[in-house]
Order: sequence, then structure tokens, then C-alpha cells
Amino acid sequence: MDASVSGLTQRLAEADQSHLLQFWSELSPEEQANLTLDLQGMDFKEINGFFKNAMEVSSSSKHEKMDARMEPVPREVLGSVTRDRESLKEWEQTGLHHISQRKVAVLLLAGGQGTRLGVSYPKGMYDVGLPSHKTLFQIQAERIVKLQQLAEQKHKIKCCIPWYIMTSGRTMESTKDFFSRHDYFGLDKSNIIFFQQGMLPAMDYNGKIILESKGKLSMAPDGNGGLYRALGNQGIMDDMERRGIQFIHVYCVDNILVKVADPAFVGFCVQKGADCGAKVVEKTNPTEAVGVVCKVDGHYQVVEYSEITLATAEKRSSDGRLMFNAGNVANHFFSFSFLRDVVQKYEPRLQHHVAQKKIPFVDSQGHLIKPDKPNGIKMEKFVFDIFQFAKKFVVYEVLREDEFSPLKNADSQDGKDTPTTAKHALMSLHHRWVLNAGGHFIDENGRRVPAIPSLKDGTDLPIKCEVSPLVSYGGEGLEELVKGREFHPTLTIDEHGVHELVKNGV
Amino acid sequence: MDASVSGLTQRLAEADQSHLLQFWSELSPEEQANLTLDLQGMDFKEINGFFKNAMEVSSSSKHEKMDARMEPVPREVLGSVTRDRESLKEWEQTGLHHISQRKVAVLLLAGGQGTRLGVSYPKGMYDVGLPSHKTLFQIQAERIVKLQQLAEQKHKIKCCIPWYIMTSGRTMESTKDFFSRHDYFGLDKSNIIFFQQGMLPAMDYNGKIILESKGKLSMAPDGNGGLYRALGNQGIMDDMERRGIQFIHVYCVDNILVKVADPAFVGFCVQKGADCGAKVVEKTNPTEAVGVVCKVDGHYQVVEYSEITLATAEKRSSDGRLMFNAGNVANHFFSFSFLRDVVQKYEPRLQHHVAQKKIPFVDSQGHLIKPDKPNGIKMEKFVFDIFQFAKKFVVYEVLREDEFSPLKNADSQDGKDTPTTAKHALMSLHHRWVLNAGGHFIDENGRRVPAIPSLKDGTDLPIKCEVSPLVSYGGEGLEELVKGREFHPTLTIDEHGVHELVKNGV
Repeated sequence: MDASVSGLTQRLAEADQSHLLQFWSELSPEEQANLTLDLQGMDFKEINGFFKNAMEVSSSSKHEKMDARMEPVPREVLGSVTRDRESLKEWEQTGLHHISQRKVAVLLLAGGQGTRLGVSYPKGMYDVGLPSHKTLFQIQAERIVKLQQLAEQKHKIKCCIPWYIMTSGRTMESTKDFFSRHDYFGLDKSNIIFFQQGMLPAMDYNGKIILESKGKLSMAPDGNGGLYRALGNQGIMDDMERRGIQFIHVYCVDNILVKVADPAFVGFCVQKGADCGAKVVEKTNPTEAVGVVCKVDGHYQVVEYSEITLATAEKRSSDGRLMFNAGNVANHFFSFSFLRDVVQKYEPRLQHHVAQKKIPFVDSQGHLIKPDKPNGIKMEKFVFDIFQFAKKFVVYEVLREDEFSPLKNADSQDGKDTPTTAKHALMSLHHRWVLNAGGHFIDENGRRVPAIPSLKDGTDLPIKCEVSPLVSYGGEGLEELVKGREFHPTLTIDEHGVHELVKNGV
Repeated sequence: MDASVSGLTQRLAEADQSHLLQFWSELSPEEQANLTLDLQGMDFKEINGFFKNAMEVSSSSKHEKMDARMEPVPREVLGSVTRDRESLKEWEQTGLHHISQRKVAVLLLAGGQGTRLGVSYPKGMYDVGLPSHKTLFQIQAERIVKLQQLAEQKHKIKCCIPWYIMTSGRTMESTKDFFSRHDYFGLDKSNIIFFQQGMLPAMDYNGKIILESKGKLSMAPDGNGGLYRALGNQGIMDDMERRGIQFIHVYCVDNILVKVADPAFVGFCVQKGADCGAKVVEKTNPTEAVGVVCKVDGHYQVVEYSEITLATAEKRSSDGRLMFNAGNVANHFFSFSFLRDVVQKYEPRLQHHVAQKKIPFVDSQGHLIKPDKPNGIKMEKFVFDIFQFAKKFVVYEVLREDEFSPLKNADSQDGKDTPTTAKHALMSLHHRWVLNAGGHFIDENGRRVPAIPSLKDGTDLPIKCEVSPLVSYGGEGLEELVKGREFHPTLTIDEHGVHELVKNGV
């Protein structure tokens, strides 16, 4: 062992993590070098502190009393696309104005890998099977392009919406490559800023870091709340400040319907003077597995569905709605100054959450074990953990069928949130856009298809219809293309025109 | 041809249906006899009249103007389990009182075959795969048994709830056999009354009855609205009158969650002085394929989803709810006197609806053709067609997750309304009953399972839990069995006690 390794040995011993070098002598020189590199980059004291604090919070009894401490979101901080229709136009105009002033940026959480989806590349590169075969990244990029155009047309000023993309150590290179290969989907390369969230080791219940092989630690991204630490340590807040960004829209890569930099949401938050806002969809079934935005001890937070009792989940207001119905969809607004405070002051105060997991590990005899029970934890922060620090928090309720369809799982029987459900959600939305713009669809027998297509063989077969974001951001501008016309699906509308795809063969 | 056939020939000629005997000489004597029998039972004049009227109504433009004529259900005729919680107990008591007075009967619509479900026997005989493997018929029977007991216990009077079961020509024998083999599931045989809905021939667009083979007409049940004609011509109204029935709960066999003779629904309707009522669930997504109860030209009716434009489907009230949100679930209340008037006076006035279908047929050369486009119609009436005649119509809104999960389709990817969704809906309801009665579930590692179980691999895997209707009709009476106890799923609670099933092997 050379000097650096012996220094490491001592640091590990002090941190009670000496077992990480147990198989040192069995490693190849290359493996030794890699392990050394990994370990040298780690602050064991900090990690042990994270573990201690996270376990304390996790084992404390505060969750038991959660129900009694929860209050619903009061009406006065709520904006709703269904209940405040008269304000929608104004909010949208306000948002577009700030976009035209280059004050709005978007921040994409794309650190996760598509593990549950069954792919080894970043989720944003997934093609759910739309007629255009666009990936999630491309759809989102084109929405930004279009929104820039809309703001420019309205305000006659050249503008841009910087796009900050948080990857993880595992997805950074492939994500950057993908954007480069696709010429940044028409966006200016200098306005797409990639950065990387941190990783933390998985630990067993005694606080020992887990080895996934003899020379490799079991590492995982530190949760989407790792955002704040990454924003600070990679100079992103400085970049925003240089650009004069005042409002940031944060969203997660997996939602195919996401209205990137949604001007109505941004405008609502700005008009309300909010420093932090959450977009939500109404939770209508008490046992739906979605976290809800609510107040706890007077502060806003997301209470996860696993934390509440059925009695609380089933509580209703006098209007019959679920009392805790503000379903979190990982879609948030921050003012720049609040985000800077979060990064500098608030985030470091937060403890990690503990996720108990089945983590494959190398046992003391050197055998690789795949446990069938949880044997350790991953430590994560969540992006919404900092809601509690907001001075003016607002909630913006949108329609699920218009704005939220996450891609989480591979297609399978009874699957939720799959490529198929995402594809159908997008086509259904675009079908409704075309109908509302005065277009009609006709079937193979030349008859008009009803607005609400019937279910065939129990499978929801939506009309095949896709509108490029380059043509319409949110359904606007389609009248001149479709009004009074009849279309055979598959209908696609893109920057080159209106197309009815002719099927090859049967 | 003998005399009767030559009489038939003339009747057919007069009705312009002579083609039905085109292949007479090619038929075996047995086939000839069967065809003769079928034809002799038919009133061609009436059938031709049905066709003429149905086609006229179908081709008229009245649907075009439907949107402008629709009004939502006013609040004053609406009872809601979520918005009128303070009245629920009273409604239930009223219903139970009338049940104890033997004034309440249930009427089951079970004429359909499980074609879409992929089985050749009646749907009620289907086992969706519950731990108990009970069929839909058994579940419904046991709910009646239990409800009789609850009424008897409360009012100290022996009572019964007669069960009228409408089958069709195709399902009558197998249904009766099934009940007989299972000893009427503990009910008194004399209180189960089977009757049979009518059949009508399929016709081509020129009004010619379709032959499905050279010697056989293409016949189909005349829709669930065939109920009313069958009630009259099979003496069911007389039977009800003899028994002193005053209130009738009508429901469809395919809903695994159906609260048969629901005392709260019955009590609500009775207290409101209604002659007709519809149980509904809230429609929350504009494009959900469900008919909605509303007023059209001042009269209540169900408007089918295919009849309305998207703009109407998307209309919202000031509270943000869909304006037309009273989703019909084929679950109705009738007063005896109203039902009698319907049978005697109103139903004959109604035209049949036209359903365009692909109907296999024998062409004039004698070849069997399976068309790939609709080539003819089936004529149906719907059970809700008579809402318009009610003098006092009410609507009762319940929670979908508590009361509605229909079985329509075979299991398949992305399937809706399948055996799996029905099974999960029932187990999820019973899981909630146990939690609300103070029971807990623990997982294989001995930890308490959260009230809202997480999704694993994108599949909703509910806690396996089944409570026999013989133990609890609607969640009542479980505290003494489960309060403060912890259970490993699968949990089953039946008349023999509380069981935790031990899995065999892995």
C-alpha cells in the first residue's frame, strides 16, 4: 500500500468503515485504483452523520401523530384551472411576459435511471411509441422552443428559456451525448446547462457502507432533493444570477404531458407573490398512492401516502371532496431568491429520508448475496422537503388528464404509468385539442367518430393523433389547420403540415 | 309443406320476409321443425314496426341538438354519500325498516352472456379469483341473506327480500341449474323468481331479418329495457303485488361491489317520495366512456357518451366539477306503482335503439359471410329509457371505489373492468373495512403495512383480504373480530371465523 492508501486506511478506521478494504489483497491493480479513487472522494464523517441523523428521524415516533397535525391547503392559496377559469388568461399573460423578459428558467430532474422501466439509459431518452417516435427529451425541448416563440411573437423581443438539466453520475455522459447527437433539438446549446446530482452509499442497519462487489461500493443518487446541494456546489445559482433568472420551474423528466415553464403556473405564482409553489392534481380515491401537499404544524409539506392512516385519507370536506386532495406531481415553482436561500441556508438543515431496500452485498466471506428482505438503507432528500421554509407558498391545481402522465414502469398487465398509458394520455390530449379546434375524425367506414370513443374489447384505444409541440404548446393555434375538416386517424400535425398516415397493408 | 307452413309462408310474404324460407328445401326435417317453431312464435308485423320506428328515430337529427338541451341534475334531487353524510344513517334506517316490512324486492338484470368476458355461461356464474372463489351470484345472494338478518335483528320481525332474476333465452336453464345445485345459497327457493327477457331478430338495413344459418334466424336479447315487457308478460308484477312489494331495487349482475337492496339508497328514495331513482358515481374525466344522468327538455334521462360533444363533456360548474358528472351505473330504484305504470302504459310507447353491428349472415347463394363492416342492426331498449316518465325522480351519488366495479372484459394488458380489476376492487374495499374497524396488517417481515400500500413494479397489489357478506354487508360488525389485532394477509373472515391463509410453498 502506498502512502495515500495508508492515509485512507486510517480515515476508514476512524469512521468505523475499515471493512471496505477487507478484500483489498484480492483486487486487481485496476480495481484497487478505482476503489481508492471512489473512497478518496468521500467524506465519511459527513456520511456517518447523515446516517445517524436519518435513522434517528426515521425511528422517531413523529409519523404516528401526523394525522392530527395535518391541515388541508386553504382556498386562498389555491389556484385552480377548473375553479378560477376567469383568471387563467391573465396568469398566462403574466407568465409569458416574464418569459419574454428572460426571467424564467426551467430545471429538469433527470437523475434517475429507467430501472423500473427496464432500460439502462436515462428515462428522457425513452420513446413511448408515438407516431413521431419522439423521446421525452425531444418533446420537452420542443415545448421550450415553442414557448420561446410564443413569448417572442407576443412581445416582439428575442428571448430564451434556459434549461438546467440535473443528471446523475450514471446518466451524465449518455444524456449529454444524446443532446449533442440531436443538435439540442433546435435549442441553443449555450442555454442548456447540465449538472450532476450527488451519490451516497447504501448502508446496512449498523451504519456500515455496503460493498456491491469486493472492490466496489453500493452507490445511489441522493434523491431528487440532491438538487439543492448540486445547485450550490456546481455553480448553477451563479449561472442563474448572471442570466438574471428570477423564476424557476422545476419538473421531473418522466411526465410526458408536462407543460415546461407553464406560463399560467408561473404567472399565477408571480401574481400571488409566492416564493414557492406546487402544481398538484386532485386526488379522488383515498387509497391512491400519491403524496399530498398540506400544512403540518403550520408549514407546508408533502405528506407521503405511506405516512397517513386510512381515516385521514378518507376525510372529506363539506363539498364532498377529499380533504387532503392536493396530489403532488413533482412540479414546482421557485423564486430565485428563495432557491438561493434554500441552497445556502435551508437545505443543509434537512435530514435524509431512509428507504429500506433489498441491497445485494458481499458478505464477510466474499460471497455475493441477494437478500430477500430489506437489509439496509438508501438515504435520500426530496425536492419538496424545503416547502416548509417558504414564506409565501401557493398551490396550483390542474387537470390530470391534461398535464400528468408519468412514465415509471414497463408495459405489463394492469400496468400503471407505462409507455402505453403515457402514449395514450398524449394522444388523447391532442385528440381533444383537434376536436376543440373544430376538427373531426372519421372511421374506416367514413362515419364520424364520437368525441368520446367507445371501449373496444376493454382496451382504451384512443384516436391516434399527435400534434408537434413546434405547432402548438397547449392546444393554441390549431383552428386554421383543422377547423371543419375531417381526418382519418392516424393524424399527425407537425411543422411541415397536417398528415394522415396511410397504413401499410392491414 | 303442411298447412301450418303454408300459413306461415303467407304471413312471411305479407311481412316481406319470405327470404327466411329460401333454403327450406335444403333443411333436414328437424331443422325445418325448429325453424317453423321459431317463426310461428314471431309477430312479424310488430317486428317490422319496431324496425321502422327505430330507424326513424336513429336517423332523425335530434342527437345533433342534444348538447343545447341538456341540463345537469339539480342539487335538490341529489343525495350524496360524501355531501350528505349527516343523513346517511337515517336513510339507512328507513330502508331497513321497509325491508323488515317485506316491502322491498331486488331485481337482477342477468340476461347477458359473458361474450366479451370470453365465457359461454352466464356472467353471474363467474369466479373472479377471490380467496373464497365465490361467484358473483353467490356474493349477491349472501348480501341478501345478511341484509335480511340485519333487518330482522333490528326490527324483531322475520322478513325476506324477494329476488327477481331476469335471464334470457340463452341463460335461463344454466342459471336455474346453478342456483339449484348450490341450494340457492341459503335463500328460500320460493323467494327467487326467474323470468326471461325477450329476443328480437337482427335485421339488415332494408328491414330483412338476418339468417345466421340456412335454417336459423340471428336472434339477440332485446336489451336490458326488455325488462319491462318481460315483467308484464310473465306475471312478475302480479307476483310483486301478491307479496306486497312497494319498492324495487334494480341492478346489473356484473358489478362485484353492488349493494343489493342498499337500504340507504332505498331509504333516501322513499324519504324523497321518489317513484324512480338512479344511483350514480361521479364522472371526473370528460372522456370517460360512461353515460350521464341529466335533464333533457325538462325530463330525466341517461345521455350516452357517444351522443355528446367534447365541449359539453368538458363543461364545468363553478365548483370545478364536471357539469354532467352523474355517471350511470345501471343501479336503480322504482316504486311499485311507477313500475306498474311503466309496464302497462309507458314502455310500449318507447322506440328501440339501433345498434349497428357486424352480423354474420347467409347470403342469397347460401354462403356464410362474416362481414368486416357493420351490415345490420340489433334493436334494444334500455332500462333507463323510462326515467322520462317519472313524476319524482332522484339521484343518489355514491363512491365508485366503494360500490362500482363491473366485470365486462377478459383479463388483458391495460384491461378495464376485468376479473383482476373486480377482484382487486373487492379486496381493497374489505381491506379498508378491516382498517376502519381497527385491524392492522403486517408484512412478511413483521412490519405494519401502511394503510395505502405502495405500488410494486407498477402493479397495484392490494392486500389480500376478503370478508364474507354473511359476516358484514357494508363493513359493519367487524370491530369485535379485528380491533387491535394484526393480520398476515391473506386474511379471510367468514361465518366460521377469522383466518390467515398460510401459503403452500413459495
